Amino acid sequence: MTPQADTYDRILQAARDLIYARSYADVGVAAICEHARVKKGSFYHFFPSKQELTLAVLDTFFVDMKAGLLDQAFRPELPPLERLQQLGELTYEFQARMKDMTGHVLGCPFGNLASELATQDEAIRHKVSAIFEKFQSAIELTLQQARDAGDLPATDVAATAQAMLAYFEGAVLLAKTRNEPELLRQLLPAMTQIRIPAQH
Amino acid sequence: MTPQADTYDRILQAARDLIYARSYADVGVAAICEHARVKKGSFYHFFPSKQELTLAVLDTFFVDMKAGLLDQAFRPELPPLERLQQLGELTYEFQARMKDMTGHVLGCPFGNLASELATQDEAIRHKVSAIFEKFQSAIELTLQQARDAGDLPATDVAATAQAMLAYFEGAVLLAKTRNEPELLRQLLPAMTQIRIPAQH
Repeated sequence: MTPQADTYDRILQAARDLIYARSYADVGVAAICEHARVKKGSFYHFFPSKQELTLAVLDTFFVDMKAGLLDQAFRPELPPLERLQQLGELTYEFQARMKDMTGHVLGCPFGNLASELATQDEAIRHKVSAIFEKFQSAIELTLQQARDAGDLPATDVAATAQAMLAYFEGAVLLAKTRNEPELLRQLLPAMTQIRIPAQH
Repeated sequence: MTPQADTYDRILQAARDLIYARSYADVGVAAICEHARVKKGSFYHFFPSKQELTLAVLDTFFVDMKAGLLDQAFRPELPPLERLQQLGELTYEFQARMKDMTGHVLGCPFGNLASELATQDEAIRHKVSAIFEKFQSAIELTLQQARDAGDLPATDVAATAQAMLAYFEGAVLLAKTRNEPELLRQLLPAMTQIRIPAQH
């Protein structure tokens, strides 16, 4: 790795860790530079603003969520509804690991930033919205396959995927609020029971 | 109203409006004092810290949510499951009004603060957790009455109330992320369909 790329990555990783554990507004450029062991000049060489950095942080979170959660849960060889159970189980395991490491359930990095910034930063709101769309599409594809297999009669799969995403985000938020990863084991298995009926 | 009580109320109202529209970390004591037209000395006379003020803000949000949402939706004269539909409709109307007034779906004031601060402030986390418990209890009582009326056979009403609260919070978060109050009209009617079966 070139020194430049290393500096870029250190800034990104520091911002990601600090913002996920705390919040966007609570983490300043100075704290990110200190954590990344870089000078402020280097920071602004790579990122014109904290907003630009946070958009890049959201991209890296999505790459990791895709590899570590979506690609693991939504495996074609699993029966469709089992993929959603797997999504819940992997989410529990991840949040439990975060709690072991930091003392806290950290919640959803996308939901956290949307909740904090949706009223204040349109670029970040749009980015999270686009990530939620991708997450919802993965659920929807699974539901289509379940319907094709005869498991979901008379279901509006697009609306149901959106409802399942809402339930998922709410469950993660409650687990963060209670600081109890176990809550995800209580709540997420019921995700597969949500149905929005097809309109006739 | 005495001048003292008026000052206290102005600080509380300013903090409430600013934090709800933005976030806890983004709103400093100076901004609150300016918005409330009080001096910093007055602020610290009433509130030893922004944390103490925010705990009081959460109390006033809960008083208003109880009067404006819970007491309106959970009316004994409505059939139990209609109360939950009413909760969804009133929530849509409130968030649509917030968007008309501010340009933004502001989300749930409790969910917002939990999402931002649960990892950083135990007093605020506990306060939001206690408010969620009250909300969940209101749902649970309604589900008990629906079950007693024969509408919810074989349902674990405590677990279902918790799942409905998760769904509600997630739906409000998605509506905030998309800045579309209409999403609540799509999502919240399905809340009554969530069931956690009783264990045998």
